[in-house]
This record gives sequence, structure tokens and C-alpha cells, in this order.
Amino acid sequence: MKLYEQLVEELVSRINQGYYQPGKKLPSIRSLSKERGVSISTVQEAYIRLEEGGFAEVRPKSGYYVKGRSAAPQLPEVSRPAQRPLEVSHWEQVYNLLHAEKEPGHVALGTALPEINSSTLKPLLKSLSQAARNGTENFLNYCGMGGSPNLRKQIARLAVDYGCNLHPDEIIITSGCQEALVCSFRAVTNPGDIVATDSPSFYGSTQAIKALGLKALEIPTHPETGISLEALELALDQWPIQAIQVTPTCNNPLGYTMPEERRKGLLRLAQQYDIPIIEDDIYGDLYFRSPRPKAIRAFDQEGRVLLCSSFSKTIAPGLRLGWVAPGQCTERVLHKKFVSTVSSPLIQQEAVAEFIANGYYERHLRKMRLQYQQSRDLMIEWIESYFPEGTRISFPEGGYMLWVELPMAMDTVLLNQRLADKQVSIAPGVIFSASGKYRNFMRLNYAGKMDEDTHNAVRVLADEIRSFAEEI
Amino acid sequence: MKLYEQLVEELVSRINQGYYQPGKKLPSIRSLSKERGVSISTVQEAYIRLEEGGFAEVRPKSGYYVKGRSAAPQLPEVSRPAQRPLEVSHWEQVYNLLHAEKEPGHVALGTALPEINSSTLKPLLKSLSQAARNGTENFLNYCGMGGSPNLRKQIARLAVDYGCNLHPDEIIITSGCQEALVCSFRAVTNPGDIVATDSPSFYGSTQAIKALGLKALEIPTHPETGISLEALELALDQWPIQAIQVTPTCNNPLGYTMPEERRKGLLRLAQQYDIPIIEDDIYGDLYFRSPRPKAIRAFDQEGRVLLCSSFSKTIAPGLRLGWVAPGQCTERVLHKKFVSTVSSPLIQQEAVAEFIANGYYERHLRKMRLQYQQSRDLMIEWIESYFPEGTRISFPEGGYMLWVELPMAMDTVLLNQRLADKQVSIAPGVIFSASGKYRNFMRLNYAGKMDEDTHNAVRVLADEIRSFAEEI
Repeated sequence: MKLYEQLVEELVSRINQGYYQPGKKLPSIRSLSKERGVSISTVQEAYIRLEEGGFAEVRPKSGYYVKGRSAAPQLPEVSRPAQRPLEVSHWEQVYNLLHAEKEPGHVALGTALPEINSSTLKPLLKSLSQAARNGTENFLNYCGMGGSPNLRKQIARLAVDYGCNLHPDEIIITSGCQEALVCSFRAVTNPGDIVATDSPSFYGSTQAIKALGLKALEIPTHPETGISLEALELALDQWPIQAIQVTPTCNNPLGYTMPEERRKGLLRLAQQYDIPIIEDDIYGDLYFRSPRPKAIRAFDQEGRVLLCSSFSKTIAPGLRLGWVAPGQCTERVLHKKFVSTVSSPLIQQEAVAEFIANGYYERHLRKMRLQYQQSRDLMIEWIESYFPEGTRISFPEGGYMLWVELPMAMDTVLLNQRLADKQVSIAPGVIFSASGKYRNFMRLNYAGKMDEDTHNAVRVLADEIRSFAEEI
Repeated sequence: MKLYEQLVEELVSRINQGYYQPGKKLPSIRSLSKERGVSISTVQEAYIRLEEGGFAEVRPKSGYYVKGRSAAPQLPEVSRPAQRPLEVSHWEQVYNLLHAEKEPGHVALGTALPEINSSTLKPLLKSLSQAARNGTENFLNYCGMGGSPNLRKQIARLAVDYGCNLHPDEIIITSGCQEALVCSFRAVTNPGDIVATDSPSFYGSTQAIKALGLKALEIPTHPETGISLEALELALDQWPIQAIQVTPTCNNPLGYTMPEERRKGLLRLAQQYDIPIIEDDIYGDLYFRSPRPKAIRAFDQEGRVLLCSSFSKTIAPGLRLGWVAPGQCTERVLHKKFVSTVSSPLIQQEAVAEFIANGYYERHLRKMRLQYQQSRDLMIEWIESYFPEGTRISFPEGGYMLWVELPMAMDTVLLNQRLADKQVSIAPGVIFSASGKYRNFMRLNYAGKMDEDTHNAVRVLADEIRSFAEEI
């Protein structure tokens, strides 16, 4: 490794750790050269690479600055969902979001699809191809119900990074995070039970609540600190809540990441009322800085937290590979998993295990985190430029989704219908609520290429909002 | 194609269609030569190939005979399950069957694993490998909720063979037949409902009944003609049954194939009591003769039958590829499928679609049907030779599973435990019943190589039965 490469690596690691903050000036070329005892041209080379990599930007006559937005945009206010348990509806809108056949050229801003064309995924495709070529025994058979021992080992190894000491035997491989969530719900609830959720909340989770005959009690949620513990405590006093479901890190769609103290506070409430927490960590590995926050499960000594995750957002959703570490409920979740799909396909599991073991997963994550952070800032810039004044936008510290609140009473389901023949679509806010809230909200995805097509799509969207607003 | 090859193909087709029956004499070489206007040596060559292919056997001084057992062994009697709805138990034994880590050399006679090392599966592996090599777009993305349009089209095309006119849009791809079954149960029942099943019945289905809080009402079932319509009608009069679940073709584990008249009768009962039928056709394509029986769904004009199937028994279970054509309930099943796993992995779907479209599936089936038929006869021969007198054995007309009744009151769960350190295992009968019946039954699989290891395993099993019987 050349001198300047070493320097780049060190600087990137310091940026990722937050030692150098977004928007702040990096050391001058001269001072860094002096401090490190390397030539001016070595530092110059390193800074050019940093700039190319999107970590820094040069400001004429001033020097290099850490790239990235430092100040949050105008955030949505704390949500105020209905204060009673409700049956979940809006399946039709979810169906339309997921099922509509899109013409080529359509820009689907509403999906939760990650970047799947990255060159850093190539080793995974190679593993898959090799596994298929090498023959049958491996993956044509059923795998054990819990899943591939290799993959479970790798997941347990990665979990140390977010403070969790999971035994591979506890981890159950599922067909996506959805199966992890729904098997968890099934293990800890009975039809008619009430589940407390953050609000807005992932529609896969709320539709599971609907399908299982449960009721959702949506808790007011802060766009930076997450589910309100105060409101949750009041709700726990008032209603016989049987489980809490939250996505505390890089939340979908609201973007919050709960501070550690509030995670501990949430766990204490769960202990006090003796109920389980279903923690969805699906976007956790996409937290932009390093180290990523500890999971709630990290503070849980009793196995009260059922930790659910997946490789759908970090690698690719088409693999349908998720997992759950159900703590105390492992046996019960295993029965639900058997009844649901018996076991998950082995070929994907083995390929992903190899991808992780060889360090390709970490490399891929490093690239995607940086790309998504840059795209977040660009998307916010576009929205601030084109959307009506007063629009509020979330400021996620990871993942690739924005939660956008329009400043007028506009039904985004209708907006979406108007957009249909303009080859643009969004995720309407109402599917993230059991109580029909968030009608003037939408979720937007910035994982795709932030190219002229996407730029145009945001302009078309903004134009349509304005022209719809004039008709209202 | 050479002359003798044409002749072989024609003779095989006649054997498969039942025109030449097992055990019956084939035309003499001389008469066939005369009749077809081909040389004696051409007919000789054809008969040698038939013999090599296992279709015929030569009897000295007599000629060639169609191979295959013509007479059934001593069959189990009509089952007499409990005459009331029951909660399902015995998860522990199912878990042990599926989950136990087997040492190398272990002969697992109890599993439902098909032959997965056949050379006729090679084109599938090639497709899988190519799909992975060709890159990402295809299969790293979510596929539509219903599944790959290519695969759904192929399934609809194949369904014509068993009398079903399915539209590809009705077909929903699932993660194995298990997900098809459980989504169907979820779509047509509520917790507490009663479901009528054949008895013995597939444990995946009965465990689904357990997990969904349903009750199973097991109906007496005939080893040749299937679920008793008379008993079912009495039950329908007496109990508020909400659905009927049966596997009418190559039933697992009992081996029956319902005659067409009884299929129609079953449908009439369902119409009369206005309830849906969940038809499991997972072994249907492995019916030994041609044409295979029509599905119950073939006679259903209203979409009352939810037809479930999979490629787990015909190709390989590790693909986790099943499907359901839910008729009237399509929208409801689609919601259950979304909640369960969102969608199924695309790479397997595309590879199987190609495998079918290119005729490889039919070729593979032709080989497997013949192999399984020969193996069935050999396995029955072994059991008749080594097991205690009075043992009763099913006589399936397809698939690769035998249902065996021991002539004494022996608990096969305990028998299985005694076999553990002898590297042999069986599926104990009790897991095929909600009411703890079939304690002296077992299910045996003859899909694997019928080699000396398997032969020895059957001997070891028989010895253990005898020595256990002496202790009772």
C-alpha cells in the first residue's frame, strides 16, 4: 500500500468515526504534511482521492472540507397518531406500491429497493454461480430448519459490532425480514391482542398485525429520538399491550435513530410491564458513521428482545434472506418458521456466508454507506429546491429513505394516481399508519442512481404537487 | 432416431398408459416383428433396451413380461381416527424428524427427500449457474408478489395435463408447498375453526392447523380410495367444519389415489355444505402411469378448490418453490403471502421455468416415475421378506413413500429411539395424526438409491422390530 493510500484510509476512518464532522475544514495540506512527515504531494494526492471518493470537497482559497450535510432540514413534527388500538387497513395501497407493473423508464421513488448494481456485489454472484455449478448435494436438499450453520456463524460474528452476543444456535434464518417479523408476532401474541408500534411504522409490520387479527396502538414518535417513552408508558398503563414493535436504527420511514439512553429506557419499560420487544434492525448496518449504535437487544440480559433483520437492504431483497434471534422465544419461533415455509433455500445462504466471511460484505457496506449519505444530501437539496415552501423532511443517519411532509392538506394517494402516467411514483404516507394518518406525507427512496432521470422525476413530482395544490 | 428406438418409445408409452399391464406378457418377438414389418433383431434390440430400462423382464422359455408388481401387498385397513375435532400435538416428533443432525452413513428412511442426484437435473443447475453469472437486475430485485410470470405460465401449461384450466395470474408462487398450504388455511379459516382432513395426514398440514389455532377432525380413510365420503358427510352434518384438506393423488403417507368418481363426490359435498377444499397435489406429477389423474380442481367451476403444489418432490426441496391457485380466494391468499414472506426468490423461479420450457422437466419426471415404481416394488419385497408376518403395507401408484403397519402394539417413536445408534431412522406414525393414532405405523421413503446400504438399513430396522417386540 502506497503512502498516500494509507493516509486516505486513515482520514476516511476518522471521518466515519465522526472525528472530522461534515462541513468542517480538514487539516491544511502543509500542516498535515508536517505532522505526518510526508511530502506535500503525498497529502495532495490523498486529498484528491478523498474528493473523488466523495468524502471531501475543495473550497477555493480555503482548503478541503468534509463533505456531507451538517444541519438537518426542517424536520416533521412529533407524530400524533390516534390514542387507541386500531385495526390496520390500507392493504390496497400497499398492494399497488408493490405489485404495479412499471414500464421501462418509470422512476419508482416509493420502493425500498437498495442499489443492486454495485460492483462490490460481484463476488456474491460468483459464489452463487459456483455453488450451482458444483452440483447438487449442497443446496437441493432441505437445509436444517434453523438454516445454514455457516451463515448463522457469520451473523453471530457481525452482531458483536452492535453489542449483541448471539449464539449461532439461537439464530433462525428466514425468508426475508418479513418472515422474521411475522413469526415473532405469531410467537408472542394471540388474535385480538394489542401491539404498540412507533408511528409512522413499516407497512410490512402493520399488515402482519392486520393479518394476525391484532390491533395496532400507534405511539407518538419523534423524528430524531424515536418512539416517545412517555406516551408509551401512558399507553402501557391504559391498555393490555402484549408486545412492542420498533425499528430503532435508521428507522423506516421516519429516519430516526434512538439514542442509547432511550433504548435502555424502552427496555426498562418492557421489563416493568413484562412484555417482549420485537426489534427490527434491517437498516442498522447502513448507519453512516462508525461504530453503529448498539441494538436494544445488546442491553437485554433476559432474551426479552426478539431481534429481526435481513440482508434485503444491505445486499439485495431478491435473495429473500432474513433472520431472527428470538431469545426466550426461540423454540416457539422455530415452530412458526416450520409452519410458514419449513426452511429457507440453502444456495443463497451459503453464498452470503462466503461473501461475509471473505470481507466482501464489509467492503460493500463501506461503499454503500458513503454513497447513500451523499445521495441523502443531494435528495434533500432537490426537495428543498423544488417542493413548496414549508415542506418538512426527515434527516436519517443511515439507510436510504426520506419521510416528507407537505405543507398543505394533500392526499398523496391521489397525488400518486395523478403521477401514474408521468412515469413517477411515490409511497403514500397513509400506508405507514393504522389510523389513516399521514395523508399529506410520502416516503422517497434515494438508493438509485442520482442521475438526470431521478433529478427530473423529483422535478416532475414537485410540479405535480404544485398543480394539484392549486386545484384543491 | 433408429427403428428400435422408435419401437422402445412406443412400447414404453403403452406400458405407461396401462395398455400392457405389470406382470403381463409382452408380444412375442416373432409376432411383433411381423406386425410392425421390422426385423427380428430390431425387436430383440428393443426388448433388451426395455429390460435395461427396467420396463420388462425376461422369463426363460416364456418371453418378455412387463415388469412391476401387479398385486397389492396386504394393505392397512381403513383408518379409524377419533370422531371429534382435536388440537394437534406431536410437534416434538416432527422436530426430531426434520432437525436431527444425521451422521454420515446414516440411512434416513423417514424423510420425504426425493432423488436429487439424477443426471436429468443437470440442465437446472446450468440455468441457475448462468443466471447468477449473467448479473444482477434479474434476481436481486424483489419479484412481483405473485412470482415470476415465466414460471406461472409454465405451471398453467402443465396444469392442462391434469384437467385444470388455470390462468397464470391466478397462480401465486410460494416458498414451498408448506407456504401454499398455510396461506390457504389462513385465507379460509379463523382461529377455533374445524378443518376436516384425511387420516393419516401430512404433518406439515396438521402442524399448520395447530399453529393457526384450528382443530383437526380426522376422517376415516381407505388405503386405496381415500377419504371416506360417507364418514365425511356424517361429520359435516355433526360439526361446523370450515374447510376440507386432502391430498388425493399419491397421498402422503397412505399412498391412495382417489378414483375420479370419488373426487367428484367430494366436490359435491363441499358444494352442498358451501366450504372450500384445500387440495394438495405435491406428488401428483409422480403418478406412475400416463395420463395422471385429474385434480379435484379440474371439476370445480366455481373456484372453490385452492390447489396447492410444489417442485419439492418432483425436482428438489432445497429450491423452496411451491405455488397455489386459490380460485375465489386469490386476493386473500395474496395478502397472506405478502405478510408471510413478501415474495419468493426469483433466481430459482427463472431456472425452473427454463427447465420446464425446454422439456427437461418432463424428461426428468419420466425417469423418476420409472425409478420410483421399481424401487417401490423392491422396498415392498424387502419388507415382506424381513418384517414380522402380518405387517401391512400401502401400495402407492406414485410418489416414493410407503405406509407400514406393524402387526403388534409397538410404539414407533420408541422404536426410532432404539434405532438412533444404529444409523437408521424412520418417520413414526404418530406425527401423521392429530389424535395420537398410528403408534404402530411408520412411513418409509424409497426415493434414495436402493443399494446394499439401504437394503441393510431395512434389515437392521426389521431386526430391531423383532427384538423390541420380544421385550414388549
